[in-house]
Amino acid sequence: MAKQPKTLEDLFHETLKDIYYAEKKILTALPKMAKAAQSEDLRAAFEKHHDETEGQVERLEQVFEIIEQPARGKTCDAINGLIDESKEFMKEFSGSPALDAALLAAAQAVEHYEISRYGTLKSWAQHMGLTPAVGLLDETLEEEKRTDQTLTELAEAAVNEGARQAAE
Amino acid sequence: MAKQPKTLEDLFHETLKDIYYAEKKILTALPKMAKAAQSEDLRAAFEKHHDETEGQVERLEQVFEIIEQPARGKTCDAINGLIDESKEFMKEFSGSPALDAALLAAAQAVEHYEISRYGTLKSWAQHMGLTPAVGLLDETLEEEKRTDQTLTELAEAAVNEGARQAAE
Repeated sequence: MAKQPKTLEDLFHETLKDIYYAEKKILTALPKMAKAAQSEDLRAAFEKHHDETEGQVERLEQVFEIIEQPARGKTCDAINGLIDESKEFMKEFSGSPALDAALLAAAQAVEHYEISRYGTLKSWAQHMGLTPAVGLLDETLEEEKRTDQTLTELAEAAVNEGARQAAE
Repeated sequence: MAKQPKTLEDLFHETLKDIYYAEKKILTALPKMAKAAQSEDLRAAFEKHHDETEGQVERLEQVFEIIEQPARGKTCDAINGLIDESKEFMKEFSGSPALDAALLAAAQAVEHYEISRYGTLKSWAQHMGLTPAVGLLDETLEEEKRTDQTLTELAEAAVNEGARQAAE
């Protein structure tokens, strides 16, 4: 039997597995980032995003149900790279007044990865006529954009606080 | 001599080396993506972005000059992960009507990584009072955002064309 060429449905499914793996990985990274954070506001933001991420994982599980596939992740080199990089920066800037700025940069790179993936998945779901999936993916996409906005504001505060500490 | 704590200046320099490595890696990846693209428009977009990336590398070299450091990259796990992932998708969807959609998803994930890095670097440069660097980083940031917008439009066209091919 000749192998069937892969379709947009396959691509959607593969990408869904990719972001499912990524979200689970982020769930394990966020408590470490919260613990490392110097400012209370940043710690609280990471904790809040951890709770949101749990909801995002559940939404992905609903999308797997919609396409009648088991909720299963698949190693995502991109998120592994992003998280390895953030660990390296955390280690390198441990004890530095610039640590929060480094943590924020890492978190924003992860947010942007997610924004790109959810944007793509939503667009494909629209094309495939998966209306309930479009709603779920859009809900997470908007949540990620709001998180990125919050992180941008915290980043501004973090460099000011870092400068204050460095001047002491 | 006690080790000096790392500063925002160090973080800026480290992140600059990270994105410099990333841009050079992207320069080698784009011709392969252009070659793989099925649609003429997508090929042209990758070729155009290759030229733009050369300009972005030059701007980064100017920023290195501003901070009086040699232009040198540093292995960036994040871009390596993103590019490994795109290679895997290219292989898996080779010959598929969904190949261009897969290439576009990969390219948009890379764009978002860059948008996040340039946004962060620009904000730090503002804080450090590096006005000429702010201008250079902003120029690239806006270019990356426009590229992402172009890719979003091409992604819409790609899924339509993929569906037409799949129906043949």
